[in-house]
Amino acid sequence: MTVPAPPTTMAREIAEQPATIAATLDALRPLGPHIRELAGGAQRVLFVARGSSDNAAVYGRYLSEVHGTVPAALAAPSVATHYHARMNLTGTVAVSISQSGQTDEIVATQGWAADCGARTIAITNDGDSALADAADLALVTRAGDERAVPATKSYTAQLAAVAVLVDALGTAVGRLDGQLAAVPDEVARLLAAADGVAAAVEHLADVDQILVSGRGITYGTALEVALKLEETCLDPVRGLSYADLRHGPIAVVDRSMVAMLVAAADGPMVDGMTDLARDLARRGATIVGLGGDATFAAACDTAVAGPRLTELVAPLGLIAPAQLIVEALARRRGLDPDAPRGLSKVTQTDPR
Amino acid sequence: MTVPAPPTTMAREIAEQPATIAATLDALRPLGPHIRELAGGAQRVLFVARGSSDNAAVYGRYLSEVHGTVPAALAAPSVATHYHARMNLTGTVAVSISQSGQTDEIVATQGWAADCGARTIAITNDGDSALADAADLALVTRAGDERAVPATKSYTAQLAAVAVLVDALGTAVGRLDGQLAAVPDEVARLLAAADGVAAAVEHLADVDQILVSGRGITYGTALEVALKLEETCLDPVRGLSYADLRHGPIAVVDRSMVAMLVAAADGPMVDGMTDLARDLARRGATIVGLGGDATFAAACDTAVAGPRLTELVAPLGLIAPAQLIVEALARRRGLDPDAPRGLSKVTQTDPR
Repeated sequence: MTVPAPPTTMAREIAEQPATIAATLDALRPLGPHIRELAGGAQRVLFVARGSSDNAAVYGRYLSEVHGTVPAALAAPSVATHYHARMNLTGTVAVSISQSGQTDEIVATQGWAADCGARTIAITNDGDSALADAADLALVTRAGDERAVPATKSYTAQLAAVAVLVDALGTAVGRLDGQLAAVPDEVARLLAAADGVAAAVEHLADVDQILVSGRGITYGTALEVALKLEETCLDPVRGLSYADLRHGPIAVVDRSMVAMLVAAADGPMVDGMTDLARDLARRGATIVGLGGDATFAAACDTAVAGPRLTELVAPLGLIAPAQLIVEALARRRGLDPDAPRGLSKVTQTDPR
Repeated sequence: MTVPAPPTTMAREIAEQPATIAATLDALRPLGPHIRELAGGAQRVLFVARGSSDNAAVYGRYLSEVHGTVPAALAAPSVATHYHARMNLTGTVAVSISQSGQTDEIVATQGWAADCGARTIAITNDGDSALADAADLALVTRAGDERAVPATKSYTAQLAAVAVLVDALGTAVGRLDGQLAAVPDEVARLLAAADGVAAAVEHLADVDQILVSGRGITYGTALEVALKLEETCLDPVRGLSYADLRHGPIAVVDRSMVAMLVAAADGPMVDGMTDLARDLARRGATIVGLGGDATFAAACDTAVAGPRLTELVAPLGLIAPAQLIVEALARRRGLDPDAPRGLSKVTQTDPR
């Protein structure tokens, strides 16, 4: 296999993110009143997504409840596509997330939600897609053409869209505006500094077992880091919540494992993540910390600097150094990060 | 380490299940009208659980939507315990599941749901527990004293309670009654036959990577099989939905992997699970099939017989042969299935 010389397409797309996040925020923030009109009084948010988009949905699910104080859930698309269950979704806003807007299952589930009485909002990178066409409102991300198979800039653009959306719901009403405005510069700073990235790649280069964990607002980030590591570096990698890890899987943690722990610099989770770092270290694991505060970083074997952003928007910055790690690790392992084995850009869950 | 001679405590508790499921159904089916009075008109079911109980909740989540046609979700307890988010849960029935009824996080989240306006139902094996005491209604399972750390009979009793509960919601109204009545004899038959169990243990004995997958109604079963294999056999095991597997992690499937696929004998999922078995086999994986129909079994390298139960209640039977596999595999690997390293019977997510 020929490994492309850097910069790979993935590296170039990672580097575009300050611009694509800024463009997405500029395009979508003016839609706040429209979102509020359509969904501001919703009693429930139902996210519909798969893969990386589903990890953006996990962020949305926590943000909806924590920031918007609107109950949220992740849809089980098979309830729509295979069981054809009819239920009352009045008062629900269904938020479907798909980079391409072409995944049949997501388009079908959005249609089902509308038939059940939900209002529908599509978050997609293609304003002409079937998903955008059928939605009551389309929030079109400005990631541009993404050509590497692993989603990077389309994922962060989805996070930006999710944040703008939730910030128009319930009790939120624009309170994230100032924090979101700080994101593009902060992502640019993180990508330029790449602080701790090379050391993290060294720790991850030769291990068999990698585990990624986060909690609450950063849980979706942990899932996305795990998915990216796995699909790009072709090693099984598990993404687990702090709580699920403690309820069983922690039994298998030993010195053959590297744990990547993801934390924001503030908020109610960083102390628990610091305790988890110490606990996993006692079990022999090597700990790579991403973000967190100084105490968290000190509890880890190596610390990758995270963003100077408050917890509610920290996922938009935390993923950037993780993407650098994934891209470098794939090359280090002699793999092509742009085109992982066995995957294509648009995944259909079921054969067409 | 001294490995206990069979029968282990876990083996004895597995064998008690026909009786504990029958006792649980006998105790809870008369409560149908009470459940219906409290929750029959609920617009939403919110499950609150961790660990094995959370896998029972995943079954409940699908059953609520597919059979009860009531939208369902899994709670994120940290929204209550760490973020202290206040939201309107009027019209919601919160169903908390905990064997012990003592996990602080679950008790706290149930209390939070009540404060937010939800009706509360506790499914627990201890009618005197804090969880049962605080609930509007307690569905007390009849699993008796469970002493092995891996949950077996308490888990199937939870599934029975979940089925009775959902069967009183929405459009359900007792339609599962006849199917549930057939479960205890069917579980007894499966445990006595143990058809395919020894061959499955041989396939799993020496592999590094085990993956378990299911879809829809059997997805929770796949998660529970993965958790049991992992905590008892001390190997990392992943439980993934059919769809999540196709959206990325399928890239890492190769000949070093054994995939256990879980399917009911009927319903809309068995054909897709059969296709998945063939796809994973093409990638080189060894396929252990659990349940399914004859075509599914023929697509697998080895087939473990599942229950003669319709899909909606199949999870109550499918887990039985899987438990036999887990118990035998642990002993085969020289481990004590009754007391896995690093775990205790009642897990507190956060230090007390």
